[in-house]
Amino acid sequence: MAKKLTKRSEDYSKWYNELVINADLAENSGVRGCMVIKPYGFSIWEKMQAELDRMFKETGHQNAYFPLFIPKSYFSKEASHVDGFAKECAVVTHYRLKDDGEGGVVVDPDAKLEEELIVRPTSETIIWDTYRKWIQSYRDLPLLINQWANVVRWEMRTRLFLRTAEFLWQEGHTAHATKQEAIEETEQMVNIYAEFAENFMAMPVIKGFKTESERFAGALETYCIEALMQDGKALQAGTSHFLGQNFAKAFDVKFTDKDGKQDYVWASSWGVSTRLMGALIMTHSDDNGLVLPPRLAPDQVVIVPIYRSEEQFNLVSNVAKEVMSELRLKGIRVKFDDRDTHKPGWKFNEYELKGVPVRIAIGPRDVENGTLEIARRDTLTKELVSRENVAKIVEGLMEEIQDNLYTKAANYRTENTTEVSSYEEFKKILETKGGFILAHWDGSKETEELIKNETKATIRCILINAKEEEGTCMVTGKPSKMKVLFAKAY
Amino acid sequence: MAKKLTKRSEDYSKWYNELVINADLAENSGVRGCMVIKPYGFSIWEKMQAELDRMFKETGHQNAYFPLFIPKSYFSKEASHVDGFAKECAVVTHYRLKDDGEGGVVVDPDAKLEEELIVRPTSETIIWDTYRKWIQSYRDLPLLINQWANVVRWEMRTRLFLRTAEFLWQEGHTAHATKQEAIEETEQMVNIYAEFAENFMAMPVIKGFKTESERFAGALETYCIEALMQDGKALQAGTSHFLGQNFAKAFDVKFTDKDGKQDYVWASSWGVSTRLMGALIMTHSDDNGLVLPPRLAPDQVVIVPIYRSEEQFNLVSNVAKEVMSELRLKGIRVKFDDRDTHKPGWKFNEYELKGVPVRIAIGPRDVENGTLEIARRDTLTKELVSRENVAKIVEGLMEEIQDNLYTKAANYRTENTTEVSSYEEFKKILETKGGFILAHWDGSKETEELIKNETKATIRCILINAKEEEGTCMVTGKPSKMKVLFAKAY
Repeated sequence: MAKKLTKRSEDYSKWYNELVINADLAENSGVRGCMVIKPYGFSIWEKMQAELDRMFKETGHQNAYFPLFIPKSYFSKEASHVDGFAKECAVVTHYRLKDDGEGGVVVDPDAKLEEELIVRPTSETIIWDTYRKWIQSYRDLPLLINQWANVVRWEMRTRLFLRTAEFLWQEGHTAHATKQEAIEETEQMVNIYAEFAENFMAMPVIKGFKTESERFAGALETYCIEALMQDGKALQAGTSHFLGQNFAKAFDVKFTDKDGKQDYVWASSWGVSTRLMGALIMTHSDDNGLVLPPRLAPDQVVIVPIYRSEEQFNLVSNVAKEVMSELRLKGIRVKFDDRDTHKPGWKFNEYELKGVPVRIAIGPRDVENGTLEIARRDTLTKELVSRENVAKIVEGLMEEIQDNLYTKAANYRTENTTEVSSYEEFKKILETKGGFILAHWDGSKETEELIKNETKATIRCILINAKEEEGTCMVTGKPSKMKVLFAKAY
Repeated sequence: MAKKLTKRSEDYSKWYNELVINADLAENSGVRGCMVIKPYGFSIWEKMQAELDRMFKETGHQNAYFPLFIPKSYFSKEASHVDGFAKECAVVTHYRLKDDGEGGVVVDPDAKLEEELIVRPTSETIIWDTYRKWIQSYRDLPLLINQWANVVRWEMRTRLFLRTAEFLWQEGHTAHATKQEAIEETEQMVNIYAEFAENFMAMPVIKGFKTESERFAGALETYCIEALMQDGKALQAGTSHFLGQNFAKAFDVKFTDKDGKQDYVWASSWGVSTRLMGALIMTHSDDNGLVLPPRLAPDQVVIVPIYRSEEQFNLVSNVAKEVMSELRLKGIRVKFDDRDTHKPGWKFNEYELKGVPVRIAIGPRDVENGTLEIARRDTLTKELVSRENVAKIVEGLMEEIQDNLYTKAANYRTENTTEVSSYEEFKKILETKGGFILAHWDGSKETEELIKNETKATIRCILINAKEEEGTCMVTGKPSKMKVLFAKAY
């Protein structure tokens, strides 16, 4: 446990993997590409879920649950969707095993399904097949539904949280009477994602549209939030899709408006996943381990007693318990680690590794002097404070640490966003500094493809509020109206 | 929507299906045996989840997440487990589809998995395969973990909520240093389930042990809670298993105790599922629709305005909003249905069908007279009350309705529990009255099997606190020390 992590500067990828495992967030399982989310990691995910769920419900959404399996034929109904999704996926072909006569089991060849079932990679098709039954009239609209679920995409190269065969997510699927309303919903949801990322994850994000080639399979427009990780690579943290009438047409979902006229329904879908855990880790953490923003920390404060005798332990414990009560009264999540199986030094390392925002140490001398030692995880600084002010100080620290993490990440992003005017410069920045690069692009698929093939950088998004600025494409010299955002990405 | 349900007395099973669909709880999907849980049904399940999750956490459990897929070979590791579970299940054999050249997709024969993956029917095997890595020392124990997940069991005959191929549940999996501790955990959890059933679902339950033949595959003892439905059939509502060292041995999970001695770990597992939704429905509902206990009702109160003109609407709305605020201040979940798309009569039927515990109607005359009409869903009675007392009255009703539903169900169960002394009497009661039957049994598998084959009744449980009573088995005449609980069951 107390083992040192590889330094980020040495091997960022190794550092990430070690951190995820050693901080008890997740680990690989015996099933290729599928992770186990460990209790500590899951408790952070639960905090994320709770906040997002609250935000969804406050904007009128309801949760529901749709089947894990999707009949193979459903995928073929929306032409571009089948290309995007019905390929690398888990296919259920049989529904029974039988004894092999040697204590094991084999697939029963007599139990073959007539039509194979796909483990959902996303649920548009099964949900729109259901909406056909739910929507008849304008009175049934808007239909604002979300589901928390597991999905499976058979990825060849997997990384804990960032890219796993099975992952957890939420997927919203809404139906509207008008195009305008569906677009507003799509925008509202990308705004909610941005608000969540910034206010809870302390992670600054850029809102934009995806280019046509990066769009969701079946969408007319994909909105996204993009964040910059500490290694200069971008991470797509959430997407919201305007689906037009594509799925309504594919699944024949029509409604009658107030005047008795029939039309296809307009749609949006949007999702974030356990990938956010990866984003959270790579935005704030350091060589000592995880750094958590207080709003998502399962334990915001940990109290570690310092003692040599039982008498000292009792003395120190009394103060610790008082402090714990005071902090809890202020709504702060605090844990008192009074285990006698581990030494204080071990505990200090452990909570540093696990990213607990504030650590309080209390020893016999502190009890005598009416003091406590407060250590901040974000700055790794310690301070001796007066016992009587501790609740107020810690309460202030919760806000201060949350803000500091955001500011640090925002400054990093500013320092690592470069505007370039030539392709040479573009390539040089990519190789040396990395980060976000703003550059003119002629709007063509071909140029986008060429840049991707030559540099591995992709267009992360076309900024929603990009300033118009006449220029020429850095590759082809063709006219361009605004710079777009490039980066190498996870 | 306003369509009448089939009466329970006419066709109980048809009544149940119509209620589930018309009250917007769930419906069948395009995938055989898999249901869609609709938003209203899901919001009740969310209330159940929230309470159970709180109870689990208060007793020291943490949530985590384990893979959906389990390698086929894992099932063969625990001999009795493989017989019980690795048979009727969804088997993933391939990980890719490809174009069929006609706009559709087919399974890619080149993408066959080396080892088939089973969609989890329960997670003991994959979890104990993980625990081997997590448990080394007594310091790592107890390990108290729960997961909320979907599971799949390929049932041939399915019914919404009661028996579906995919269902949602929670599964707790705990590891302990001693046998005694594991047994205490198993008992604690069946007690928590009983407490939840009685205090939140207002559903009286009997706690007991399963007979050997009804035990969970791999358990040494299965504790259960059994409830009695309105049609005289029993429903197993939750189980908690003492697994001994079976899974620890199968997956080689050992720990070192304080004295440095190695031993296998002791285990429990326990679960409840969306089946509880079926139990809730069949315990309280009537021919008008769902009846919900206030503690699990998404809306505890609905206010319906009665008006003919916009002026009247405004008048009535003002009072409705005041009442709504007063009730919310008391922590009551209240909805004001001010839609002008539906008439009051339609709304009355709708909320009756959906089981909202209290309905308040306000018309212009009420505003004049300072009155309101309160209707109770459980008794279908109406009362005119004074405007100024409404908050207090409704607050009282929340407790009163919750208690009344429990009492009604408990009385029904008392009336429908019969002690018999002969097999003749047993068969007669089963055919005429149904319900729970207490009878002497000789403790043998053969007799249990014979009774089941002849009557379709099964031993629901051996009561935890059964009074010792010398007697003779109703079938074989062999000696018996106590009566056990029989019933036909869901």
